[in-house]
Amino acid sequence: MTGLTHFDASGAAHMVDVSEKPETARVAVAEGWIRMSPRTLDIVRSGTAEKGDVVGIARLAGIMGAKRTADLIPLCHPLPIAKVAVEVEIDAALPGLRMTATVGTSGRTGVEMEALTAVTTACLTAYDMAKAVQKDMEIGGIRLLSKKGGKSGDWTAP
Amino acid sequence: MTGLTHFDASGAAHMVDVSEKPETARVAVAEGWIRMSPRTLDIVRSGTAEKGDVVGIARLAGIMGAKRTADLIPLCHPLPIAKVAVEVEIDAALPGLRMTATVGTSGRTGVEMEALTAVTTACLTAYDMAKAVQKDMEIGGIRLLSKKGGKSGDWTAP
Amino acid sequence: MTGLTHFDASGAAHMVDVSEKPETARVAVAEGWIRMSPRTLDIVRSGTAEKGDVVGIARLAGIMGAKRTADLIPLCHPLPIAKVAVEVEIDAALPGLRMTATVGTSGRTGVEMEALTAVTTACLTAYDMAKAVQKDMEIGGIRLLSKKGGKSGDWTAP
Amino acid sequence: MTGLTHFDASGAAHMVDVSEKPETARVAVAEGWIRMSPRTLDIVRSGTAEKGDVVGIARLAGIMGAKRTADLIPLCHPLPIAKVAVEVEIDAALPGLRMTATVGTSGRTGVEMEALTAVTTACLTAYDMAKAVQKDMEIGGIRLLSKKGGKSGDWTAP
Amino acid sequence: MTGLTHFDASGAAHMVDVSEKPETARVAVAEGWIRMSPRTLDIVRSGTAEKGDVVGIARLAGIMGAKRTADLIPLCHPLPIAKVAVEVEIDAALPGLRMTATVGTSGRTGVEMEALTAVTTACLTAYDMAKAVQKDMEIGGIRLLSKKGGKSGDWTAP
Amino acid sequence: MTGLTHFDASGAAHMVDVSEKPETARVAVAEGWIRMSPRTLDIVRSGTAEKGDVVGIARLAGIMGAKRTADLIPLCHPLPIAKVAVEVEIDAALPGLRMTATVGTSGRTGVEMEALTAVTTACLTAYDMAKAVQKDMEIGGIRLLSKKGGKSGDWTAP
Repeated sequence: MTGLTHFDASGAAHMVDVSEKPETARVAVAEGWIRMSPRTLDIVRSGTAEKGDVVGIARLAGIMGAKRTADLIPLCHPLPIAKVAVEVEIDAALPGLRMTATVGTSGRTGVEMEALTAVTTACLTAYDMAKAVQKDMEIGGIRLLSKKGGKSGDWTAP
Repeated sequence: MTGLTHFDASGAAHMVDVSEKPETARVAVAEGWIRMSPRTLDIVRSGTAEKGDVVGIARLAGIMGAKRTADLIPLCHPLPIAKVAVEVEIDAALPGLRMTATVGTSGRTGVEMEALTAVTTACLTAYDMAKAVQKDMEIGGIRLLSKKGGKSGDWTAP
Repeated sequence: MTGLTHFDASGAAHMVDVSEKPETARVAVAEGWIRMSPRTLDIVRSGTAEKGDVVGIARLAGIMGAKRTADLIPLCHPLPIAKVAVEVEIDAALPGLRMTATVGTSGRTGVEMEALTAVTTACLTAYDMAKAVQKDMEIGGIRLLSKKGGKSGDWTAP
Repeated sequence: MTGLTHFDASGAAHMVDVSEKPETARVAVAEGWIRMSPRTLDIVRSGTAEKGDVVGIARLAGIMGAKRTADLIPLCHPLPIAKVAVEVEIDAALPGLRMTATVGTSGRTGVEMEALTAVTTACLTAYDMAKAVQKDMEIGGIRLLSKKGGKSGDWTAP
Repeated sequence: MTGLTHFDASGAAHMVDVSEKPETARVAVAEGWIRMSPRTLDIVRSGTAEKGDVVGIARLAGIMGAKRTADLIPLCHPLPIAKVAVEVEIDAALPGLRMTATVGTSGRTGVEMEALTAVTTACLTAYDMAKAVQKDMEIGGIRLLSKKGGKSGDWTAP
Repeated sequence: MTGLTHFDASGAAHMVDVSEKPETARVAVAEGWIRMSPRTLDIVRSGTAEKGDVVGIARLAGIMGAKRTADLIPLCHPLPIAKVAVEVEIDAALPGLRMTATVGTSGRTGVEMEALTAVTTACLTAYDMAKAVQKDMEIGGIRLLSKKGGKSGDWTAP
């Protein structure tokens, strides 16, 4: 099974050995969005402008979600995250919210999964808070934008 | 803030009181996909056909993810899930994997968030296992297909 | 050991059997505060008025903390919480923040510990966010205000 | 918002980037108390002298609580704790129990929140175990006593 | 695959649907042991007689472990446990400790896994605390003693 | 209490201070088994050969269980695991499954408890999946096979 590092030679799943890897600075950036009707976005936006802070809660849930990554993803290494930021942008053209997560650490493995988990958790949280007014929202566009550090080096989405 | 039930009259976030709601049978179905190159899908598929079981592990991660929903989504009620199934379909036309999660309970709140969390966790897990061969996979199409039970009644995606 | 229900006749700790108790509506209210200097409170207050929302984040952490109660308190029963609200009041006379948590469920045990855990988690979170400007803040006044439901009946703090 | 490091320039919450900080030895000490009636304290004390060990269970819960800090406090960094000790002293003059927690690590961020979380978890656990005999106990005096290590240097409570 | 209920007709793993099952009283009892040298047992016993309470900590860890069962066992239903007791007996003939866990709930699924998880967590904790003096201890004899309630009825180990 | 390092001089439990220890490469290997009837083993084996993958799910649960060790074992240090592998062997002579877990890290404490927790979680998961066809399976033979690294040096089971 060429290339799938989460399996050993016999095809059994394992958590890859990274104990010999040096600790290096790692950063990963991921993005995603949740699309809703213009009316739902208006409600979300007015809440945010006032006090019912959908954007702030989605951001916080994304940050906390990053810390849960190794609990959720079976073969993902636990690691002490050194930085998480989640940007939530109101996009009237979508219409909806665009999330971008940046996660950093100094460790033996990358933080791509942490950044992707932060983004999806923020999107799911926004869905939860707006679902009383709209059920057919859609979450999509979840992808890695860039990663830095580690043996495989830097990478930017084409 | 018309309609956003997760906020009280003053705009403060709260976990909605459901203690007066009757326990009813609830089911929610959600779907999503992860798109990858034909070559990555071939590797995933051959692994599954043999022993390195990307599909099986993504399914299991989705099931376990449903149990973590109230940990991840700040204002989501914890509830004893009575059923979770995650279907993973290999779709050569996507190309990629299509996930469908069905969650059921007998409770005071719905299980829409549990179904959506199962689907996204399954997609993230597939990403994790295939990322050594492709980094620019995309996760999308995450949406609720249907829900049954509760005061707001049955709903099917248009 | 008269009265300490968490121990059996031989003095061994156990989680008390509540399986024979009926499910009844339960509510508990608890309060607590964090005291800080007038200057720190000004910074917290101005942040809240603008966007850096100490109050909103403390409230959310309190709500999520209530869901973690049975993880933290060894002999506490896990139960599906039906409602959590955390009020955060800016008190210039303290000076500091006063937290009040209300937790409800329909279950076999009370939710006093959930309300107290919500309050302390909200206070600890406020400490965490303000500690860069003041380290000698103090958390106190954590107590139960009232409980309703259950065999021991209603109770209000004297 | 001068000084609140958990917010970026625009006021959005984030988990501060510590990836560039060196790993240094860190120690934090925190304290707190739970006040009860003399009669409740007698019951707690006699239990401890015999076998129903309120003090031992509160201590253990405090130690385990320290490991949960980053789960509870939204913007707190996860870190591998290297040492936790919780002292529980019976104070007849209070009357009640005084808790002191000492937490150490070699890391990029301090362990003040871990020490404070250990103390509050120990106090909450003592409340849980004695609440069958007294409901109006109070938890207070929760504060940092000292911290060592890190860029901001050593600090001792005035 | 005759009889393995955790798989559907196509062989895919799922969490079995129990939403149609009635809530009934359930009890499960499980046992296990940890065998150590007479010298290690002497140290454990003397610690317990004095203050370093291996037995008390193992018991408490077993109780808390029962609450973690659905986190650990992928296809296990989460359920609100109503009772947990763990007995720890010093057995000079083994020599070592014998653990017996009793778990009860009123629910739609049994608590066999909770009782078995309580026993193994208690044994692992005893190992952890004594491993500085002996590494070749062995844990074994982990089995279900009895279960009551549910569609499959009562069962007692032969 | 000679040798029980989890207790201080007064007999109070604590999490041992390892902050002064150097980070070294650590590996621990543990084993265990679950014994079942030949008929149950046939069902498990045929499931694995086809699609209902008891062996694969037990292996994955063991890997994830290793990541939960510090949650379960009260005085165990949390640490970033660098490698986990769980081998599951079908043993017709037992008859049953033999599990072997290998855990590695670069850290200040050993990973013996992580390896033992992986093995027991894998065994419990196998029990859960086969319990619909047999309740009197037994889990045993759980022991450490070897450890490498750390101040106390290498050790191999006699």
